[in-house]
Amino acid sequence: MSRIITIGREFGSGGREVGKRIAEELGIAYYDNEIITGIAQRTELAEEYVHQIIENKPIHYYPITVGQSFNNTINPLAQKTGAIYAEQSNVIREMAQTSDCVIVGRCADFILRDLKPLRLYIYADMPSRIARCRKKGDHGEGMSDRRLAREIRRIDKDRAKYYSFFTGQKWGDRCNYDLCINTSSASIQDIVSAIIGMLEKI
Amino acid sequence: MSRIITIGREFGSGGREVGKRIAEELGIAYYDNEIITGIAQRTELAEEYVHQIIENKPIHYYPITVGQSFNNTINPLAQKTGAIYAEQSNVIREMAQTSDCVIVGRCADFILRDLKPLRLYIYADMPSRIARCRKKGDHGEGMSDRRLAREIRRIDKDRAKYYSFFTGQKWGDRCNYDLCINTSSASIQDIVSAIIGMLEKI
Repeated sequence: MSRIITIGREFGSGGREVGKRIAEELGIAYYDNEIITGIAQRTELAEEYVHQIIENKPIHYYPITVGQSFNNTINPLAQKTGAIYAEQSNVIREMAQTSDCVIVGRCADFILRDLKPLRLYIYADMPSRIARCRKKGDHGEGMSDRRLAREIRRIDKDRAKYYSFFTGQKWGDRCNYDLCINTSSASIQDIVSAIIGMLEKI
Repeated sequence: MSRIITIGREFGSGGREVGKRIAEELGIAYYDNEIITGIAQRTELAEEYVHQIIENKPIHYYPITVGQSFNNTINPLAQKTGAIYAEQSNVIREMAQTSDCVIVGRCADFILRDLKPLRLYIYADMPSRIARCRKKGDHGEGMSDRRLAREIRRIDKDRAKYYSFFTGQKWGDRCNYDLCINTSSASIQDIVSAIIGMLEKI
Protein backbone atom coordinates (compact mmCIF):
# COMPACT_ATOMS: atom_id res chain seq x y z
CA MET A 1 0.00 0.00 0.00
CA SER A 2 0.98 3.56 -0.65
CA ARG A 3 2.74 5.26 2.21
CA ILE A 4 2.94 8.55 0.47
CA ILE A 5 0.16 10.66 1.83
CA THR A 6 -0.60 14.15 0.60
CA ILE A 7 -2.86 16.51 2.48
CA GLY A 8 -4.75 19.48 1.10
CA ARG A 9 -6.53 21.47 3.77
CA GLU A 10 -8.77 24.42 4.41
CA PHE A 11 -7.18 26.97 6.70
CA GLY A 12 -8.16 26.31 10.31
CA SER A 13 -9.44 22.78 9.62
CA GLY A 14 -6.62 21.05 11.50
CA GLY A 15 -5.04 19.56 8.36
CA ARG A 16 -1.46 20.15 9.53
CA GLU A 17 -2.19 18.50 12.87
CA VAL A 18 -3.82 15.55 11.11
CA GLY A 19 -0.74 15.24 8.90
CA LYS A 20 1.73 15.46 11.77
CA ARG A 21 -0.11 12.87 13.85
CA ILE A 22 -0.49 10.43 10.94
CA ALA A 23 3.26 10.69 10.32
CA GLU A 24 3.97 10.14 14.03
CA GLU A 25 1.63 7.14 14.25
CA LEU A 26 3.06 5.53 11.12
CA GLY A 27 6.63 6.49 11.97
CA ILE A 28 7.19 8.16 8.63
CA ALA A 29 8.51 11.56 7.58
CA TYR A 30 6.39 14.72 7.74
CA TYR A 31 6.93 17.75 5.55
CA ASP A 32 5.48 21.18 5.13
CA ASN A 33 7.67 24.15 5.97
CA GLU A 34 10.65 21.86 5.71
CA ILE A 35 10.09 21.87 1.97
CA ILE A 36 10.42 25.60 1.86
CA THR A 37 13.59 25.45 3.87
CA GLY A 38 14.93 22.94 1.37
CA ILE A 39 14.05 25.12 -1.55
CA ALA A 40 15.55 28.16 0.07
CA GLN A 41 18.80 26.37 0.70
CA ARG A 42 19.07 25.14 -2.86
CA THR A 43 18.10 28.34 -4.65
CA GLU A 44 19.93 30.55 -2.20
CA LEU A 45 16.84 32.64 -1.68
CA ALA A 46 16.10 33.72 1.85
CA GLU A 47 13.55 31.40 3.43
CA GLU A 48 11.45 34.31 4.54
CA TYR A 49 11.26 35.66 1.01
CA VAL A 50 10.20 32.28 -0.39
CA HIS A 51 7.61 31.89 2.29
CA GLN A 52 6.25 35.34 1.55
CA ILE A 53 5.86 34.60 -2.12
CA ILE A 54 4.40 31.14 -1.73
CA GLU A 55 1.98 31.59 1.11
CA ASN A 56 1.39 35.00 2.53
CA LYS A 57 1.70 37.52 -0.24
CA PRO A 58 0.95 35.75 -3.47
CA ILE A 59 1.99 37.67 -6.50
CA HIS A 60 -0.34 38.07 -9.45
CA TYR A 61 -0.15 34.77 -11.20
CA TYR A 62 0.21 35.73 -14.83
CA PRO A 63 1.42 32.65 -16.67
CA ILE A 64 4.99 33.35 -17.72
CA THR A 65 4.44 32.16 -21.28
CA VAL A 66 1.60 34.60 -21.81
CA GLY A 67 3.80 37.48 -20.68
CA GLN A 68 6.49 36.38 -23.07
CA SER A 69 4.29 35.69 -26.06
CA PHE A 70 2.26 38.85 -26.17
CA ASN A 71 4.39 41.40 -24.47
CA ASN A 72 7.86 40.21 -25.23
CA THR A 73 8.90 41.24 -21.74
CA ILE A 74 9.59 38.92 -18.84
CA ASN A 75 7.89 39.46 -15.52
CA PRO A 76 10.81 38.83 -13.15
CA LEU A 77 8.58 38.15 -10.17
CA ALA A 78 6.55 35.58 -12.10
CA GLN A 79 9.75 34.02 -13.38
CA LYS A 80 11.11 33.76 -9.86
CA THR A 81 7.89 32.17 -8.64
CA GLY A 82 8.02 29.67 -11.49
CA ALA A 83 11.59 28.80 -10.57
CA ILE A 84 10.61 28.34 -6.94
CA TYR A 85 7.74 26.05 -7.93
CA ALA A 86 10.02 23.98 -10.17
CA GLU A 87 12.55 23.65 -7.37
CA GLN A 88 9.82 22.84 -4.89
CA SER A 89 8.56 20.08 -7.20
CA ASN A 90 12.05 18.58 -7.37
CA VAL A 91 12.38 18.65 -3.61
CA ILE A 92 8.98 17.03 -3.12
CA ARG A 93 9.77 14.29 -5.63
CA GLU A 94 13.11 13.59 -3.97
CA MET A 95 11.48 13.40 -0.56
CA ALA A 96 8.75 11.04 -1.75
CA GLN A 97 11.25 8.82 -3.55
CA THR A 98 13.56 8.70 -0.53
CA SER A 99 11.08 7.47 2.05
CA ASP A 100 7.42 7.13 2.95
CA CYS A 101 6.06 10.48 4.04
CA VAL A 102 3.18 12.83 4.70
CA ILE A 103 3.32 16.09 2.74
CA VAL A 104 0.97 18.93 3.61
CA GLY A 105 0.05 21.43 0.91
CA ARG A 106 2.41 22.60 -1.84
CA CYS A 107 0.41 20.93 -4.65
CA ALA A 108 2.06 17.64 -3.63
CA ASP A 109 -1.01 15.62 -4.70
CA PHE A 110 -0.51 16.93 -8.23
CA ILE A 111 3.29 16.85 -8.29
CA LEU A 112 3.37 13.22 -7.15
CA ARG A 113 0.37 12.02 -9.15
CA ASP A 114 2.34 9.34 -11.00
CA LEU A 115 3.35 7.80 -7.67
CA LYS A 116 -0.34 7.37 -6.74
CA PRO A 117 -0.19 8.89 -3.26
CA LEU A 118 -3.16 8.66 -0.94
CA ARG A 119 -4.65 12.12 -1.37
CA LEU A 120 -6.50 13.50 1.64
CA TYR A 121 -8.41 16.76 1.84
CA ILE A 122 -9.24 18.10 5.30
CA TYR A 123 -12.05 20.60 5.75
CA ALA A 124 -14.45 21.92 8.36
CA ASP A 125 -17.33 24.33 8.76
CA MET A 126 -16.54 27.98 9.50
CA PRO A 127 -17.49 27.99 13.23
CA SER A 128 -15.08 25.06 13.84
CA ARG A 129 -12.33 26.77 11.89
CA ILE A 130 -12.78 30.00 13.85
CA ALA A 131 -12.75 28.05 17.13
CA ARG A 132 -9.57 26.22 16.12
CA CYS A 133 -7.79 29.46 15.20
CA ARG A 134 -8.75 31.02 18.53
CA LYS A 135 -7.61 27.92 20.43
CA LYS A 136 -4.25 27.87 18.70
CA GLY A 137 -3.96 31.61 19.28
CA ASP A 138 -1.87 32.27 16.19
CA HIS A 139 -4.62 33.95 14.21
CA GLY A 140 -7.49 36.24 14.93
CA GLU A 141 -6.37 37.90 18.12
CA GLY A 142 -8.38 41.08 18.54
CA MET A 143 -10.53 40.21 15.52
CA SER A 144 -14.28 39.76 15.55
CA ASP A 145 -15.55 36.37 14.35
CA ARG A 146 -16.74 38.04 11.19
CA ARG A 147 -13.36 39.54 10.43
CA LEU A 148 -11.56 36.30 11.24
CA ALA A 149 -13.91 34.40 8.89
CA ARG A 150 -13.02 36.93 6.17
CA GLU A 151 -9.32 36.40 6.88
CA ILE A 152 -9.74 32.59 6.72
CA ARG A 153 -11.53 32.88 3.39
CA ARG A 154 -8.77 35.17 2.08
CA ILE A 155 -6.06 32.67 2.98
CA ASP A 156 -7.99 29.86 1.31
CA LYS A 157 -8.49 32.04 -1.76
CA ASP A 158 -4.72 32.55 -2.01
CA ARG A 159 -4.14 28.81 -1.68
CA ALA A 160 -6.75 28.16 -4.37
CA LYS A 161 -5.11 30.68 -6.72
CA TYR A 162 -1.68 29.18 -6.19
CA TYR A 163 -2.92 25.61 -6.67
CA SER A 164 -4.92 26.48 -9.74
CA PHE A 165 -2.06 28.41 -11.34
CA PHE A 166 0.43 25.58 -11.01
CA THR A 167 -1.80 22.56 -11.52
CA GLY A 168 -4.55 23.84 -13.82
CA GLN A 169 -7.02 22.19 -11.44
CA LYS A 170 -9.51 23.50 -8.92
CA TRP A 171 -8.28 23.49 -5.34
CA GLY A 172 -10.65 21.57 -3.06
CA ASP A 173 -12.42 19.83 -5.96
CA ARG A 174 -13.19 16.38 -4.54
CA CYS A 175 -12.19 14.71 -7.82
CA ASN A 176 -8.56 15.52 -6.99
CA TYR A 177 -8.66 13.61 -3.70
CA ASP A 178 -9.25 10.03 -2.57
CA LEU A 179 -10.79 10.98 0.74
CA CYS A 180 -12.24 14.26 2.03
CA ILE A 181 -12.64 14.46 5.79
CA ASN A 182 -14.76 16.90 7.75
CA THR A 183 -13.14 17.72 11.11
CA SER A 184 -16.10 19.76 12.43
CA SER A 185 -17.63 17.19 14.71
CA ALA A 186 -14.90 14.77 15.75
CA SER A 187 -11.60 15.22 17.57
CA ILE A 188 -8.40 15.24 15.51
CA GLN A 189 -7.19 12.29 17.58
CA ASP A 190 -10.25 10.23 16.64
CA ILE A 191 -9.97 11.24 13.01
CA VAL A 192 -6.31 10.25 12.90
CA SER A 193 -7.10 6.89 14.54
CA ALA A 194 -9.84 6.38 11.97
CA ILE A 195 -7.52 7.22 9.06
CA ILE A 196 -4.88 4.85 10.42
CA GLY A 197 -7.55 2.16 10.71
CA MET A 198 -8.47 2.86 7.12
CA LEU A 199 -4.85 2.76 5.93
CA GLU A 200 -4.43 -0.68 7.44
CA LYS A 201 -7.24 -1.96 5.21
CA ILE A 202 -6.27 -0.48 1.84
CA MET B 1 -20.70 5.57 18.25
CA SER B 2 -23.38 6.30 15.70
CA ARG B 3 -24.62 3.30 13.81
CA ILE B 4 -26.87 5.33 11.60
CA ILE B 5 -25.06 5.79 8.35
CA THR B 6 -26.43 7.84 5.48
CA ILE B 7 -25.01 7.64 2.00
CA GLY B 8 -25.24 10.24 -0.73
CA ARG B 9 -23.78 9.06 -4.01
CA GLU B 10 -23.07 10.06 -7.57
CA PHE B 11 -24.77 7.79 -10.08
CA GLY B 12 -22.43 4.97 -11.09
CA SER B 13 -20.01 5.52 -8.22
CA GLY B 14 -20.91 2.29 -6.41
CA GLY B 15 -22.61 4.04 -3.48
CA ARG B 16 -25.43 1.50 -3.21
CA GLU B 17 -22.96 -1.37 -3.18
CA VAL B 18 -20.86 0.38 -0.53
CA GLY B 19 -24.01 0.86 1.56
CA LYS B 20 -25.18 -2.73 1.18
CA ARG B 21 -21.80 -4.16 2.10
CA ILE B 22 -21.35 -1.90 5.12
CA ALA B 23 -24.76 -3.01 6.37
CA GLU B 24 -23.85 -6.67 5.80
CA GLU B 25 -20.50 -6.33 7.54
CA LEU B 26 -22.01 -4.53 10.51
CA GLY B 27 -25.09 -6.74 10.57
CA ILE B 28 -27.45 -3.78 10.49
CA ALA B 29 -30.42 -2.86 8.31
CA TYR B 30 -30.06 -1.48 4.80
CA TYR B 31 -32.61 0.75 3.11
CA ASP B 32 -33.12 2.39 -0.21
CA ASN B 33 -35.97 1.14 -2.36
CA GLU B 34 -37.47 -0.34 0.77
CA ILE B 35 -38.28 3.18 1.85
CA ILE B 36 -40.24 3.79 -1.31
CA THR B 37 -42.09 0.55 -0.81
CA GLY B 38 -42.92 1.67 2.71
CA ILE B 39 -44.20 4.99 1.49
CA ALA B 40 -46.21 3.41 -1.27
CA GLN B 41 -47.87 1.04 1.16
CA ARG B 42 -48.80 3.78 3.57
CA THR B 43 -50.08 6.33 1.08
CA GLU B 44 -51.68 3.72 -1.14
CA LEU B 45 -49.86 5.08 -4.17
CA ALA B 46 -48.47 2.57 -6.60
CA GLU B 47 -44.80 1.97 -5.93
CA GLU B 48 -43.96 2.50 -9.55
CA TYR B 49 -45.66 5.88 -9.57
CA VAL B 50 -43.78 7.02 -6.47
CA HIS B 51 -40.53 5.84 -7.93
CA GLN B 52 -41.23 7.70 -11.13
CA ILE B 53 -41.88 10.94 -9.33
CA ILE B 54 -38.99 10.69 -6.92
CA GLU B 55 -36.21 9.44 -9.10
CA ASN B 56 -36.79 9.08 -12.79
CA LYS B 57 -39.17 11.78 -13.89
CA PRO B 58 -38.86 14.61 -11.45
CA ILE B 59 -41.61 17.15 -11.75
CA HIS B 60 -40.81 20.83 -11.87
CA TYR B 61 -40.02 21.67 -8.31
CA TYR B 62 -41.96 24.87 -7.73
CA PRO B 63 -42.18 25.33 -3.98
CA ILE B 64 -45.81 24.77 -3.08
CA THR B 65 -46.04 27.92 -1.00
CA VAL B 66 -44.94 30.10 -3.89
CA GLY B 67 -47.62 28.61 -6.09
CA GLN B 68 -50.21 29.27 -3.45
CA SER B 69 -49.13 32.78 -2.57
CA PHE B 70 -48.84 34.29 -5.99
CA ASN B 71 -51.15 32.26 -8.11
CA ASN B 72 -53.79 31.22 -5.66
CA THR B 73 -53.97 27.87 -7.40
CA ILE B 74 -52.57 24.63 -6.11
CA ASN B 75 -50.29 22.54 -8.26
CA PRO B 76 -51.61 19.05 -7.52
CA LEU B 77 -48.45 17.32 -8.69
CA ALA B 78 -46.24 19.48 -6.45
CA GLN B 79 -48.63 18.90 -3.57
CA LYS B 80 -48.46 15.14 -4.13
CA THR B 81 -44.66 15.24 -4.22
CA GLY B 82 -44.62 17.26 -0.99
CA ALA B 83 -46.88 14.68 0.64
CA ILE B 84 -44.63 11.87 -0.53
CA TYR B 85 -41.57 13.62 0.87
CA ALA B 86 -43.29 14.17 4.21
CA GLU B 87 -44.29 10.52 4.37
CA GLN B 88 -40.81 9.46 3.30
CA SER B 89 -39.32 11.56 6.12
CA ASN B 90 -41.58 9.84 8.65
CA VAL B 91 -40.62 6.42 7.36
CA ILE B 92 -36.90 7.25 7.48
CA ARG B 93 -37.18 8.60 11.01
CA GLU B 94 -39.04 5.51 12.16
CA MET B 95 -36.47 3.23 10.59
CA ALA B 96 -33.55 5.09 12.16
CA GLN B 97 -35.22 5.13 15.55
CA THR B 98 -36.06 1.42 15.38
CA SER B 99 -32.57 0.08 14.72
CA ASP B 100 -29.09 0.88 13.48
CA CYS B 101 -29.11 1.15 9.71
CA VAL B 102 -27.58 2.31 6.45
CA ILE B 103 -29.81 4.54 4.35
CA VAL B 104 -28.87 5.34 0.76
CA GLY B 105 -30.14 8.58 -0.76
CA ARG B 106 -33.57 10.11 -0.03
CA CYS B 107 -32.11 13.17 1.75
CA ALA B 108 -31.63 10.94 4.81
CA ASP B 109 -28.54 12.90 5.92
CA PHE B 110 -30.74 16.00 6.20
CA ILE B 111 -33.88 14.31 7.55
CA LEU B 112 -31.91 12.63 10.36
CA ARG B 113 -29.55 15.51 11.11
CA ASP B 114 -30.60 15.77 14.77
CA LEU B 115 -29.62 12.11 15.27
CA LYS B 116 -26.07 12.89 14.08
CA PRO B 117 -25.69 10.08 11.57
CA LEU B 118 -22.36 9.35 9.96
CA ARG B 119 -22.84 11.02 6.60
CA LEU B 120 -20.91 9.48 3.70
CA TYR B 121 -20.75 10.76 0.15
CA ILE B 122 -19.51 8.34 -2.52
CA TYR B 123 -18.17 9.70 -5.80
CA ALA B 124 -15.91 8.74 -8.69
CA ASP B 125 -14.50 10.13 -11.90
CA MET B 126 -16.55 9.78 -15.08
CA PRO B 127 -14.51 6.97 -16.72
CA SER B 128 -14.97 4.81 -13.59
CA ARG B 129 -18.67 5.55 -13.47
CA ILE B 130 -19.10 4.63 -17.12
CA ALA B 131 -17.13 1.41 -16.58
CA ARG B 132 -19.27 0.53 -13.56
CA CYS B 133 -22.53 1.10 -15.46
CA ARG B 134 -21.33 -1.09 -18.31
CA LYS B 135 -20.23 -3.82 -15.92
CA LYS B 136 -23.56 -3.84 -14.13
CA GLY B 137 -25.30 -3.81 -17.47
CA ASP B 138 -28.37 -1.96 -16.28
CA HIS B 139 -27.53 1.32 -17.96
CA GLY B 140 -25.94 2.41 -21.18
CA GLU B 141 -26.55 -0.59 -23.39
CA GLY B 142 -26.17 0.52 -26.98
CA MET B 143 -25.04 3.98 -25.88
CA SER B 144 -21.72 5.59 -26.76
CA ASP B 145 -19.54 6.60 -23.80
CA ARG B 146 -20.38 10.20 -24.54
CA ARG B 147 -24.10 9.59 -24.45
CA LEU B 148 -23.84 7.49 -21.29
CA ALA B 149 -21.83 10.25 -19.60
CA ARG B 150 -24.63 12.69 -20.52
CA GLU B 151 -27.21 10.29 -19.09
CA ILE B 152 -25.19 9.94 -15.85
CA ARG B 153 -24.95 13.72 -15.52
CA ARG B 154 -28.71 14.02 -16.13
CA ILE B 155 -29.52 11.55 -13.37
CA ASP B 156 -27.20 13.39 -10.97
CA LYS B 157 -28.81 16.68 -11.94
CA ASP B 158 -32.24 15.28 -11.05
CA ARG B 159 -30.91 14.06 -7.70
CA ALA B 160 -29.37 17.47 -7.08
CA LYS B 161 -32.66 19.22 -7.87
CA TYR B 162 -34.63 16.93 -5.61
CA TYR B 163 -32.15 17.28 -2.73
CA SER B 164 -31.92 21.02 -3.08
CA PHE B 165 -35.69 21.46 -3.23
CA PHE B 166 -36.36 19.55 -0.05
CA THR B 167 -33.32 20.46 2.03
CA GLY B 168 -32.41 23.95 0.81
CA GLN B 169 -28.82 22.67 0.58
CA LYS B 170 -26.53 21.87 -2.30
CA TRP B 171 -26.31 18.17 -3.15
CA GLY B 172 -22.73 16.92 -3.07
CA ASP B 173 -21.46 19.94 -1.12
CA ARG B 174 -18.79 18.43 1.13
CA CYS B 175 -19.95 20.53 4.08
CA ASN B 176 -23.04 18.32 4.30
CA TYR B 177 -20.98 15.14 4.77
CA ASP B 178 -18.49 13.79 7.29
CA LEU B 179 -16.54 11.77 4.78
CA CYS B 180 -16.40 11.89 0.98
CA ILE B 181 -14.89 8.82 -0.65
CA ASN B 182 -13.60 8.51 -4.19
CA THR B 183 -14.17 4.99 -5.55
CA SER B 184 -12.21 5.54 -8.80
CA SER B 185 -9.01 3.79 -7.87
CA ALA B 186 -9.82 1.21 -5.20
CA SER B 187 -12.13 -1.80 -5.11
CA ILE B 188 -15.47 -1.43 -3.33
CA GLN B 189 -14.44 -4.33 -1.08
CA ASP B 190 -11.29 -2.48 0.02
CA ILE B 191 -13.20 0.74 0.50
CA VAL B 192 -15.81 -0.99 2.65
CA SER B 193 -13.08 -2.67 4.74
CA ALA B 194 -11.46 0.73 5.16
CA ILE B 195 -14.72 2.35 6.23
CA ILE B 196 -15.38 -0.44 8.71
CA GLY B 197 -11.85 0.04 10.04
CA MET B 198 -12.62 3.72 10.39
CA LEU B 199 -15.95 3.10 12.11
CA GLU B 200 -14.24 0.98 14.74
CA LYS B 201 -12.12 3.98 15.72
CA ILE B 202 -14.70 6.76 15.91
